Amino acid sequence: MRIIEGGGVTAPSGYRAAGIQTGVKESGAKDLALVYSTRPANAAAVYTTNKVQGAPIAIDREHLADGKARAVILNSGNANVCNGDVGLEHARRMCALTASELGLQTEEVLVCSTGLIGVPLPIAKIEAGIPQIVAALSEDGGATAAEAIMTTDTVPKSCAVEVELEAGRAVVGAMAKGAAMIAPNMATMLAVVTTDAAVPSGPLQELLSQAIQRTFNCITVDGDMSTSDTVILIANGDGAELGDRDCARLYEGIEYACRQMAQAIARDAEGSSKLITIAVRGAATEAEARQVGIAVANSSLVKTAAFGNDPNWGRILCAMGYAGVDFDPERARVSLCGTDIYGNGAGLDFDGDKLSAAMQAEKMAIDIDLAMGAATAEIFTCDLTYEYVRLNAEYTT
Amino acid sequence: MRIIEGGGVTAPSGYRAAGIQTGVKESGAKDLALVYSTRPANAAAVYTTNKVQGAPIAIDREHLADGKARAVILNSGNANVCNGDVGLEHARRMCALTASELGLQTEEVLVCSTGLIGVPLPIAKIEAGIPQIVAALSEDGGATAAEAIMTTDTVPKSCAVEVELEAGRAVVGAMAKGAAMIAPNMATMLAVVTTDAAVPSGPLQELLSQAIQRTFNCITVDGDMSTSDTVILIANGDGAELGDRDCARLYEGIEYACRQMAQAIARDAEGSSKLITIAVRGAATEAEARQVGIAVANSSLVKTAAFGNDPNWGRILCAMGYAGVDFDPERARVSLCGTDIYGNGAGLDFDGDKLSAAMQAEKMAIDIDLAMGAATAEIFTCDLTYEYVRLNAEYTT
Repeated sequence: MRIIEGGGVTAPSGYRAAGIQTGVKESGAKDLALVYSTRPANAAAVYTTNKVQGAPIAIDREHLADGKARAVILNSGNANVCNGDVGLEHARRMCALTASELGLQTEEVLVCSTGLIGVPLPIAKIEAGIPQIVAALSEDGGATAAEAIMTTDTVPKSCAVEVELEAGRAVVGAMAKGAAMIAPNMATMLAVVTTDAAVPSGPLQELLSQAIQRTFNCITVDGDMSTSDTVILIANGDGAELGDRDCARLYEGIEYACRQMAQAIARDAEGSSKLITIAVRGAATEAEARQVGIAVANSSLVKTAAFGNDPNWGRILCAMGYAGVDFDPERARVSLCGTDIYGNGAGLDFDGDKLSAAMQAEKMAIDIDLAMGAATAEIFTCDLTYEYVRLNAEYTT
Repeated sequence: MRIIEGGGVTAPSGYRAAGIQTGVKESGAKDLALVYSTRPANAAAVYTTNKVQGAPIAIDREHLADGKARAVILNSGNANVCNGDVGLEHARRMCALTASELGLQTEEVLVCSTGLIGVPLPIAKIEAGIPQIVAALSEDGGATAAEAIMTTDTVPKSCAVEVELEAGRAVVGAMAKGAAMIAPNMATMLAVVTTDAAVPSGPLQELLSQAIQRTFNCITVDGDMSTSDTVILIANGDGAELGDRDCARLYEGIEYACRQMAQAIARDAEGSSKLITIAVRGAATEAEARQVGIAVANSSLVKTAAFGNDPNWGRILCAMGYAGVDFDPERARVSLCGTDIYGNGAGLDFDGDKLSAAMQAEKMAIDIDLAMGAATAEIFTCDLTYEYVRLNAEYTT
């Protein structure tokens, strides 16, 4: 596996992308992105499980019924959620106009929106922008596309990786925007992953679902789950065909790209001061490992302790205890920034000042051994800070 | 039902209580409480479901195996959690010495501890205090007992209520301490409920379990669940025998006392600026109503919006959506401080400034109609403030 520095969704062969400004965002920042495959492609997607879902998700489900898609049109600044039939119509029009400009069928285009909820999309601005963005498509447009999907993200998020296959090489590229939470919307996690490998749509969905389980589903900022979260994977077969043993190699590339994007989202979460990695081992199953890690990651007490550089093993143990997973507290072990802090049913001796100093770094590691089995999981989150409260409370209508 | 102003655990007939200072708390505040029934009594208890549990819970399970108990000895300042066999021995010694001073069997005494975790109990101080507290027992000692179980609570929490039964009257009294969360321990919710009604231990456990489901299990401060949460109900039969239809009337009294205590805990949560009541109606089942209310109550985004007086229906709807309960977002309705803010699948017109002003009160009401059935639930929580972050982050070892 070889990392392609500065790569993104246009790193794989046969993709074009662009990002432009249409005025949906009042700030004047870029707010419309397009990713396009120059040839027919298979596609798969995973959506939020929230009962309340944005209009784009309903349209994408329709358009992906045949497992094929060649373009994704994405806007930031407005999530097109809770707008009723008008929202559905707007999402359809975005696909239809993009298809018409690209010479595709409407069903070959997917749509994503992120930003304010409950406010109708300024569809005229977007429709005026679509011919422009199609004209702007380019082989190195991945970076501007990644920029145009940002909302409260502070940095654009892209990556690409090359994997060796039996019959040659395949490239996987990705862009994402973050789960930063800011008034008045709940923010959205969006990602588009592209590859030039040739993968039938059934296996493609399996690859994506498995990778998401181990990457995007392992990050949590504050436990809130957006109404618009969507990850789309497109495989256009412009590169190598998959040999018999290539699925696992391609999977590695997809999981790598998804993990890079997931970590970048956790690191860039609104108001966070550090990335927290929670590695759980010794679990009976991977699902249980994830469940324990997520409980610890979502604990406001653990997250404030992390902010305060407080090596508080009691809060970690407490969150493990209510995760709903069976384990023996007498056998479990916890370490923080590489220092053992809990074991044999009690706190261990450690130098609190030294450990507190180590916690001040940008990255903080919590390692948990459940001593129940051999399964593992890695969860990414951030700390809970004054800035989080400020950003999410300081909103006036 | 008649509220007894200023009443507490000694309001029912045949109870004595006291609260004293033994030095477990370095501040010099009261830290040992005792509640005692002058006659044999039945008792029931409900404990935390956390996998990690304090030593007192293990001892209480043993002592309550026969459904009988006459006294509860409680200390604050140290939770006696994660202290291994020494912790169990200390909890046993607290019961044994209290029993010996009161002329009871050790099994007739229950024990609760709240405060620091992972630090051995200063058992000598407590043992020195037990003869003193037994000597201090009095018929109006409920108030000082409630004071002695406080940790970071800012006010003691007691109440009492009288219910009319067929054969006369029964009184229910209660005291509790809060789920305030402060470094370096996770805090504990403890409550003792007393009644002079005569109730066999089986029905007593049912009454308590049902009341807790509707009261203490309907409050949440930050979703964290302590290792020591315990609610004990004692019925000494010093008052009226229960007639055939009296169980429901007594239940009302018990539920009332538990709800008063639960609300007092939510209102007094560390760093909170307001009490939030989330009333869910139109649910298919009471459990689903509670599940939706708890999801909204635990949402950091809803809690920061409440702190910022931001009438953000999107965050409420979003939390409802990931609660894991089936409902139709097109039919659900949400109102805030009595103003309808969401319905028919979209935000409704409302005066944002006026509503934001209404949210500045000490109490804030969120009303949710799921439009799925007739079941209801009421959940109590508080907002997420700078002060919460400060209290939980500003700890140095």
